[in-house]
Amino acid sequence: MAAVTLFKYPVASPADSSPLSKLQEEGYSPTDVVALIGKTEGNGCVNDFSRTLAAHVWESKLPPSAVTVFSGGTEGVLSPHISFLVRTKESTGLVACSGHTRDFAPHEVGTETQSRDVATTISKMIINAGIEKEDVSLVLIKCPLLTSTDIEQIRATGQTPITADTYESMARSRYASAIGIALALGEIQAEVAPAALSLKENTVWSSRASCSSGAELKNCHIMVLARDKSGGKGRLRAKSGYMEDAMDSKVILDMLADIKEENGKVVQVFVKAEADPTGSIRGKRHTMNTDSDIHSTRHARAAVGGLVAGLVGDSTVYVSGGGEGQGPPGGGSLCIVYECE
Amino acid sequence: MAAVTLFKYPVASPADSSPLSKLQEEGYSPTDVVALIGKTEGNGCVNDFSRTLAAHVWESKLPPSAVTVFSGGTEGVLSPHISFLVRTKESTGLVACSGHTRDFAPHEVGTETQSRDVATTISKMIINAGIEKEDVSLVLIKCPLLTSTDIEQIRATGQTPITADTYESMARSRYASAIGIALALGEIQAEVAPAALSLKENTVWSSRASCSSGAELKNCHIMVLARDKSGGKGRLRAKSGYMEDAMDSKVILDMLADIKEENGKVVQVFVKAEADPTGSIRGKRHTMNTDSDIHSTRHARAAVGGLVAGLVGDSTVYVSGGGEGQGPPGGGSLCIVYECE
Amino acid sequence: MAAVTLFKYPVASPADSSPLSKLQEEGYSPTDVVALIGKTEGNGCVNDFSRTLAAHVWESKLPPSAVTVFSGGTEGVLSPHISFLVRTKESTGLVACSGHTRDFAPHEVGTETQSRDVATTISKMIINAGIEKEDVSLVLIKCPLLTSTDIEQIRATGQTPITADTYESMARSRYASAIGIALALGEIQAEVAPAALSLKENTVWSSRASCSSGAELKNCHIMVLARDKSGGKGRLRAKSGYMEDAMDSKVILDMLADIKEENGKVVQVFVKAEADPTGSIRGKRHTMNTDSDIHSTRHARAAVGGLVAGLVGDSTVYVSGGGEGQGPPGGGSLCIVYECE
Amino acid sequence: MAAVTLFKYPVASPADSSPLSKLQEEGYSPTDVVALIGKTEGNGCVNDFSRTLAAHVWESKLPPSAVTVFSGGTEGVLSPHISFLVRTKESTGLVACSGHTRDFAPHEVGTETQSRDVATTISKMIINAGIEKEDVSLVLIKCPLLTSTDIEQIRATGQTPITADTYESMARSRYASAIGIALALGEIQAEVAPAALSLKENTVWSSRASCSSGAELKNCHIMVLARDKSGGKGRLRAKSGYMEDAMDSKVILDMLADIKEENGKVVQVFVKAEADPTGSIRGKRHTMNTDSDIHSTRHARAAVGGLVAGLVGDSTVYVSGGGEGQGPPGGGSLCIVYECE
Repeated sequence: MAAVTLFKYPVASPADSSPLSKLQEEGYSPTDVVALIGKTEGNGCVNDFSRTLAAHVWESKLPPSAVTVFSGGTEGVLSPHISFLVRTKESTGLVACSGHTRDFAPHEVGTETQSRDVATTISKMIINAGIEKEDVSLVLIKCPLLTSTDIEQIRATGQTPITADTYESMARSRYASAIGIALALGEIQAEVAPAALSLKENTVWSSRASCSSGAELKNCHIMVLARDKSGGKGRLRAKSGYMEDAMDSKVILDMLADIKEENGKVVQVFVKAEADPTGSIRGKRHTMNTDSDIHSTRHARAAVGGLVAGLVGDSTVYVSGGGEGQGPPGGGSLCIVYECE
Repeated sequence: MAAVTLFKYPVASPADSSPLSKLQEEGYSPTDVVALIGKTEGNGCVNDFSRTLAAHVWESKLPPSAVTVFSGGTEGVLSPHISFLVRTKESTGLVACSGHTRDFAPHEVGTETQSRDVATTISKMIINAGIEKEDVSLVLIKCPLLTSTDIEQIRATGQTPITADTYESMARSRYASAIGIALALGEIQAEVAPAALSLKENTVWSSRASCSSGAELKNCHIMVLARDKSGGKGRLRAKSGYMEDAMDSKVILDMLADIKEENGKVVQVFVKAEADPTGSIRGKRHTMNTDSDIHSTRHARAAVGGLVAGLVGDSTVYVSGGGEGQGPPGGGSLCIVYECE
Repeated sequence: MAAVTLFKYPVASPADSSPLSKLQEEGYSPTDVVALIGKTEGNGCVNDFSRTLAAHVWESKLPPSAVTVFSGGTEGVLSPHISFLVRTKESTGLVACSGHTRDFAPHEVGTETQSRDVATTISKMIINAGIEKEDVSLVLIKCPLLTSTDIEQIRATGQTPITADTYESMARSRYASAIGIALALGEIQAEVAPAALSLKENTVWSSRASCSSGAELKNCHIMVLARDKSGGKGRLRAKSGYMEDAMDSKVILDMLADIKEENGKVVQVFVKAEADPTGSIRGKRHTMNTDSDIHSTRHARAAVGGLVAGLVGDSTVYVSGGGEGQGPPGGGSLCIVYECE
Repeated sequence: MAAVTLFKYPVASPADSSPLSKLQEEGYSPTDVVALIGKTEGNGCVNDFSRTLAAHVWESKLPPSAVTVFSGGTEGVLSPHISFLVRTKESTGLVACSGHTRDFAPHEVGTETQSRDVATTISKMIINAGIEKEDVSLVLIKCPLLTSTDIEQIRATGQTPITADTYESMARSRYASAIGIALALGEIQAEVAPAALSLKENTVWSSRASCSSGAELKNCHIMVLARDKSGGKGRLRAKSGYMEDAMDSKVILDMLADIKEENGKVVQVFVKAEADPTGSIRGKRHTMNTDSDIHSTRHARAAVGGLVAGLVGDSTVYVSGGGEGQGPPGGGSLCIVYECE
C-alpha cells in the first residue's frame, strides 16, 4: 500500500519537464513517482500531438512502474499543468497504485475485451495494493484510439472496426474502459457489460471513472487513488461525486462548502465533461453536437473548465472531455483532492 | 421615456421567428419592440452567417425604429435564444431606447470617427428618452467589421486600413464603440479617446458597455437600458458591474446573493468575455491566444458561458466575446436584469 | 423538353442576389430559371448557415418550379458564385429539368426510402421532360441531414436514427441520394440498393451523381442536365466522367484537351471530392480522416478545388465535398459543361 | 563543397524515425545528413506540436551540424514525409550546406535584425561551401515565432512586440527571413530591407526563398541547395521559379515538360503557398482571409498541395504555407529537384 501525496506544477509547453527539478526540491526523486497526470494544450482529439510530445519527454525520465496520463485540451481558461502522485514514507490519508494492461490489437479497442482486461488489471492492482473497492476515490485511465491506419489494418484482416470514424473511436475506447472500471469496482455485473457496450449508449456508468483516449499508446495506463483506511482521516482527502449535467454548479459548491467546513484546501479537481448526447441541457438546445468546426469534447471542456476553475479559483484543474460511462449522460465524474491542516 | 419589459425565447435556428407569435400571445405586437437581442449559433467571428441570416429574417418583421443586435457564438453550454425589449404602457422599473449611427465607410471602422459618432448618437438618444447618464445600466452595440473586400476598397483609395486582419478588425470596431459609450456616459473625456485608440490597448473601459461586431451591418445599432427613476424601484431591475477576469465567480455569486435578498429572479444576464491579452489568468498561462484552431473569442465565450450559465442555472444568457474597453482587460462588463415580486 | 443555357456569376456574400439583375440584362426573367446552383462560403457541414441564408434570399425571388442547390464550402482558391440554368427558346445542345421529392421524416433520411423516392422522382422527371437515361450528363441533388433535434425526434418515437453523429448523417443522406440516382439511371438494379446502403460503404456508384446535404431543407431538390438529342451537337455540350482519386489530374487534362480540340470553352465544372476512406491515396497516407480540427470534406474540397481551378484557370467551379456513391471511393463524379463556337 | 543526394520517405507519425534505418540500408549514416526536411501533420500554425515532436525525436539522432526544417500542415492530399539531404562522396550535380543563426531574443523576431543575421549567416555558409550566389536553387529556413509568453516578456522589458497576434508573428518572422535570403543572394540592397519590413507588405521577394516559422526553435535553421558547377550537369538537377498565384498550373506544367524532355524524374518539389492578400485571385474573391475557422495558411497549403500533388502524381511534396517575400504576393517560390538517367 503506497501512501501518496500530490504535487501540481504549471508547464510552459508539452515538452516542459522542469517540474522534475521542483519535485526534487521537495525532496522526492523520479523513482518515487506513481503516476504523472497532465493536461496538455492540444485539441484533445485524434491528432493531438501535444500528448505524444509530453509522453515522449516524460516517459524517459520516469521509472517503468510509473504511468503517465496526458489528457489533451486546455480550452478556455484551463491552464496546462502536470500533477505528480508521489509515494511517501508516512501515511497521508490517500494511497495510490498504477499499472497497465497488455497492448490491444486495433480490433479490440472499444470492445468487451478491453473492458474485461481493464477490469482484471484493476482488480489485481488493488488487491496487490491492499485497497478495498469501496475506498477507491478515482480510477484514471489513458486508453488507445483508432487511427486511419489502425482501421485499415483491421479491415485488412477481414474484420470490421468498431467504428470507421477516428474521433468516435475515442468515445468507444473511453466507454469500454469505464465499463471495465465499473466491473472492477463491483458497480455492475459482468453480464451487463456486453449489452451496455452494444447499445453504444452510456447507460451504465461509474462516478469514480475518468478515461481519456489517445494515439500515443496501445495499452491502457491505469491509476487508482483511494482512501487510506489505516491512516485515519489523514491530511489528504478526496471526495467523489458527479456533475448531473455540464451546468451542475450545485455539486461543486456543496463539495467546496464541505471542504471549507473541514478547513480544507483544494489541491486538485478531476472532472469529466461532455456535451449532453440528447442535444439539450435542462430542456434548452445546445449546439455542441451540430458544430462541425469544433468537436463537442472541446466545447465541453471549455464550459465545464470555466465553471470549475471559476468556482475553485484555480485554472490548473484536470478537466477531461468525453464522459461515456464516467458519470451520468451529459454530466461527468468528479473527484476533489484536498488538504486539511 | 419608454418603460420596457424583457421577453426571452429559445430559437430552433437562426431563421426561427416563431418567438414573434409567442410575443403576441403575451399581448404585444412587433411595433412594440424596442430592440431584439439574440445569440446565434455561428462562430461569432468574421464569417458568421448565422447573424446575417437572423438579421435577414427578423429585420423584415420589426418596425424600422427597432434595432437588432445579434451576437454569434453559443459555445459550450450556451443556448441560442432571442430577447425582446418591449415597450410597455405601465412603468416596469426599466426604460430603454434604441437608435443607430449613419453607415460608416470602411476606412472609418475602428477609428476615432466611429467612437465620436457613437458617442453623439447615444447622447442624443438618452436626452430624447429623458435618461440620465448615471441611470444607464447597459449600452449594447452591434458594429461593423472589415472584410477582405472592405480592406481592398480602403487600399484602392490610397488609404491604410486600421488592420489588414479581418478578425482583428472586429476587436478594433468593438473598442471604438466602447470608447464611444464611455464618452457618452461621461466616463472619459474626449481628449482621452484618440490616445486610447492609438494605443490599441483596452486601457480605457466602461463596465456598462457591451459591443459586438459583424459583417451584417455598416452602421452601429445601439440599445440603451436604464433605471426608471420615475417608477420607483419597480418590478424589473438591473445590476451593473464587471468580472475582473474570466474566472471571476465572486462578482456573480455576490450579485446573485443580492438579488436573492430582494426576492428577485434573474431574467437575463449580459456579460462580456475575453481571453486575457497577457496570455495568463491569475498568474497561470492560458492557451487561448496561441490556439490557431479556435479563435480566442470562442474560447472566452465557452468558458465564461460555462461559469455564468452554471451559476444562474440558465443557458439562454447573453455572453458575448471580445471585451476591449468593455470591462477591465481580461474581464468583462456584466449586467443582470431581474424581476422582483 | 427544356433547352437550357448556363449563366455564372460571382457573389459578394451568400445574401447577394445581384446576379438576378445581370440575368435580366441577358434578357431572361426569374421565371425562366430551371435551377440555381451555388457555392456558398460556409463550412459546408452541419452548421453551415451560409447555405440557409442563400436559400432564404433566393427562394423568394424564384418561381416555385425552380430548384436551388447550395453547396457550402469554398475552401482554398474556390470562389463563391452562383450558376443559373435558364430555359431558352432555341435549342442549345443541353436540356434540363428540375423537381423535388416530398419532405422526408427524420427517420427516413439516409435510408432506402430516400433512395427509392429519389429514384421515382427522377424517373418521372426525365420521362416528363422526354430525356433518355443514357443522355443524362449530371443529376444534382440537395438533400436533408439530421440535426440533434432530428435525432432526438427519432428517438422520441422509439426508433433508431441511422446515425447519432450529425456530420455523418450528411454522408448517409448523400449516399442514399446517389443510390437513388443510380437506380433511376438504370445503373444498378433495385435489389442492390438495400445491400449497398446497409454496407455503409460506397461500393455502388454513379459517375453522373452529385449530391450535397444541408439543414436548410427537408426534401430533395433535384436537377437533371442532359444532352439534347433533337438539337444535334449544339453550342453547349457536357462531358461526364470521374476522378479516380483526389489527385486524378489526368482525367481533367484529357477532357480539357478534347474540349480544346472541339474549339470549346469551359463554362462550368461540377466535381465531387472526398478523402479516400482507406486513409491513403496512391499508397501514401493522408491525414484528412484523423484531423479533428477540420472535417475531411473541407480538406477534400480545398485540394480538388485547387487542382480543378488551377487546371481550368477558373476558381468559380462547383466542387462539392463527400463523394459517397458519386464516383469511385476516394474519387468523384466529374461533369464539364462547355461551349463551342 | 558537399555534393548531396536526396532521399524521401513517408512517415507514420511525427515521432516516426524509422526512415533512419532505410537511409542506412542505402549505405548512409546519420553523420552524412546535411539537412532533414519534413512535412508534419499538425496545423502548421502557432500551436503545432507535431513539429516540436518531430524535432525532439530527430535532433537527438542527427549530428549537431545537420539542421532540421519541419513544416507543419499536410492539408488535403498532402502526405507526411521527410527528406534527407545527404552528403555523397561523388558529385551528383547538386551541393548543399546547412547552418544556423544565433538564438534571437523575442523582441528581435520579425525585425531587421533577424533579416541581417540571416543574410550574414547565409553569406558565410555559401562562401565556406564555395557556392556562388547565382547557383543557389533554394534557401530553406525554419525560423522562430512569438508565443503569448514571448510577447509578455517583450512587454515586461518596456518594448513593443512587432505584433501582439501570435499567428501574425509567424508571417513577420517568415518575411524577415525571406528578406535576409534576398540580401544574401544579392537580389536586393541592404538599404531596401528596413523599408520593406516596415511596410509589412511583401513587395520585396525572392523566388529562391522558402521560410517556415515555428515555436520549436529560437534561432533560424538554414539549408542552401545549389547547382554543382564543378560536376557538370549531373544526375541531380534543380529548377527554380515561382507560381504567379495559387492557381498557376502553367509554371508547373512547363517545368514538368522541360524535365520530361531531359528524361528527368521528379524527386521532390519545394513550393510556397499563400492566400492572396488582396482577397481575390484573378479577379475573383476567395474566402481564405475571412474564414475565422481555418487560418489562411492551411487553406493555401491544401489548394496548392492539391494542384502540385495532382500534377506531379506524388503527395509527398513539400508545400509550405505563408509566402511573404518568398515569391510574388499570392504566389510562391517553387523549386523542383529531379533526377536524370
